[in-house]
Amino acid sequence: MKVSRRAVLTGATAVAGVLASDTEGAAATTAAAVKPRRIATEEAWSFPEHLDELARIGQALWSNLDAENINLEGSASSNRIVRGLLDVERRLAEMDRLGVDMQVLGLTSPGVQMFRPALAVSMAARANDRLAAIVAAHPRRFAGLATFAPQDPRAAVREMESAIKTLRLNGFILNSHTGGEYLDQEKFWPILEAANELGAPIYLHPRCPSDGLSAPFGDRRIQSAIWGFAVETGTHAMRLIVSGVFDRFPRLQFVLGHMGENLPYHLWRSDHWFERRRDAYPSKRKPSEVMRSNFMITNSGVEHAPALRYAIDVLGHDRVMWAIDYPYEEMPPAVRFLDSLGLSEVERHAFLHGNAERTFALRGD
Amino acid sequence: MKVSRRAVLTGATAVAGVLASDTEGAAATTAAAVKPRRIATEEAWSFPEHLDELARIGQALWSNLDAENINLEGSASSNRIVRGLLDVERRLAEMDRLGVDMQVLGLTSPGVQMFRPALAVSMAARANDRLAAIVAAHPRRFAGLATFAPQDPRAAVREMESAIKTLRLNGFILNSHTGGEYLDQEKFWPILEAANELGAPIYLHPRCPSDGLSAPFGDRRIQSAIWGFAVETGTHAMRLIVSGVFDRFPRLQFVLGHMGENLPYHLWRSDHWFERRRDAYPSKRKPSEVMRSNFMITNSGVEHAPALRYAIDVLGHDRVMWAIDYPYEEMPPAVRFLDSLGLSEVERHAFLHGNAERTFALRGD
Repeated sequence: MKVSRRAVLTGATAVAGVLASDTEGAAATTAAAVKPRRIATEEAWSFPEHLDELARIGQALWSNLDAENINLEGSASSNRIVRGLLDVERRLAEMDRLGVDMQVLGLTSPGVQMFRPALAVSMAARANDRLAAIVAAHPRRFAGLATFAPQDPRAAVREMESAIKTLRLNGFILNSHTGGEYLDQEKFWPILEAANELGAPIYLHPRCPSDGLSAPFGDRRIQSAIWGFAVETGTHAMRLIVSGVFDRFPRLQFVLGHMGENLPYHLWRSDHWFERRRDAYPSKRKPSEVMRSNFMITNSGVEHAPALRYAIDVLGHDRVMWAIDYPYEEMPPAVRFLDSLGLSEVERHAFLHGNAERTFALRGD
Repeated sequence: MKVSRRAVLTGATAVAGVLASDTEGAAATTAAAVKPRRIATEEAWSFPEHLDELARIGQALWSNLDAENINLEGSASSNRIVRGLLDVERRLAEMDRLGVDMQVLGLTSPGVQMFRPALAVSMAARANDRLAAIVAAHPRRFAGLATFAPQDPRAAVREMESAIKTLRLNGFILNSHTGGEYLDQEKFWPILEAANELGAPIYLHPRCPSDGLSAPFGDRRIQSAIWGFAVETGTHAMRLIVSGVFDRFPRLQFVLGHMGENLPYHLWRSDHWFERRRDAYPSKRKPSEVMRSNFMITNSGVEHAPALRYAIDVLGHDRVMWAIDYPYEEMPPAVRFLDSLGLSEVERHAFLHGNAERTFALRGD
């Protein structure tokens, strides 16, 4: 999976001048003087050993939507995506060219969550070490979300503490279910407790619907970004919301991508039926109250101004952050989208950097 | 399940004057002279034999979310709801009191879709005869959506033709999956072909997630209106959209309730990944094109002005209709919601009656 530097540069005609300065991006600094700092908050990253293990899963004749997806990715647009996941210099060059000041990196989905516990635990540690090294090399350009293995909750807690206290990473990323189990289940509460005490958010990233949620997706190929990701991840978030874990762990913050995985659009109805059936749900607060105090959302993969306007109106401008979803989405359209927003100055600063700085405890520029 | 007239009147202090005229609602006619006609488009109805058969299903020790829901409903708010489903005079009196000109009635979910084929076929015929009689008794106040049994597609087609050509009903209602199967599957194409040729819409109403989509809902009680209904019905609609059935049956119209079961909010992302993976999907047109030509939505159960504004902006004002979801939702808040809309005159007329008149081929007032 080695990517040649020559291949990376081919066709990137505008990059040469910026690459001359290379590390901290002089061009981007100039841009930041007139524009709000631009921090993209759901940016995927990987390393060869991780992609190799995922590829092995994709070899299995296994009736599982994520395994199928790994196979599909392997045959389709993979070259561009693999290069985007692996090549830090290429990523930096494009960030420079487009005035993207910082990316918040997270190990690409499904992270370590499809591996047996021992492999998952060791792979998470290795991923976090690698990620910390990337951030250390470019501290003004990258922040990092640590991964952990819910397959072994005690090991997960140790890894989480190390990732924040020792490696100085900025939060966590989790790819929805693990083996069909969801974070609101009591066996995972030590993980929620750790995030709460560390004051570090968990980005609840999509993966395909779990096996018990999977039947109507595969034959129509709607299991991933076109629809199934949002079903899986939105359902996971709704479980957390009604479960009462935020009464128990009140500082706990989750981040949802893709404009909130449909929850914001459904929020009035969710509130309405929560109120009617309060005795069915442990949570003391209704879904909109939980979302407005314990959830952030990002627009990753959704460059649609009406949806952004709706989300800010319903959740508040302090709850919505910018994201690209690189390399699954390309940087240029994500940056062009910023020109069409029609936000107020306050909303724009919150969306582009203020909320991310607060949520991920980032240093100012 | 007999409901006494005395019980119905108790507490309805403002009703007396209107009940004096009783049938066609003089008060409503007066109101219509100054206000747009108000047609509510997802209004549930039932009859005792149907509710009795559903109650029997609820008696079974059966791991199925709809069966659990029938049990829950049986113990909770059922008296008010059962009375609302059965009592036409009570419904009319409240419509009069609140200035609701017409309701489009459909057999309450899950209709006949949980019965064995023979019972489903006979129950559908009985339901449609009863419904046609209600409409015939109050032709300016009620329209009707016929039910059919997808368990037996040939019988379903016969029933559909009879319901439109003989009984003069106004369309169809289907409660999402039938035994875990979805309408885009080829065995159901005769049903789609019949609706297409009859020029009659199918209201795709929710039920709980199908067994293969059910795992993460029951233990957290999120299988119904709080979240699961939209997962089930939105997934069904997305299957239809990508399947190409609208290329084959171009006049076919579906109606989605609950502000579109999350599809409108996800539409940009669905389009984006449909375009990227065009070879994966039979449909010639992207999701937004299909939605804007073959789907109507209603605001049933969603009295949230920002969501309505978003839906009209994204789908067009000729695609969104008013609904109450009576008796699961109460009429007064649904009518009060109309005062807070902030729509243009054109949008308001389309939302309150114009779109419904066109979609369901209703007579003008």
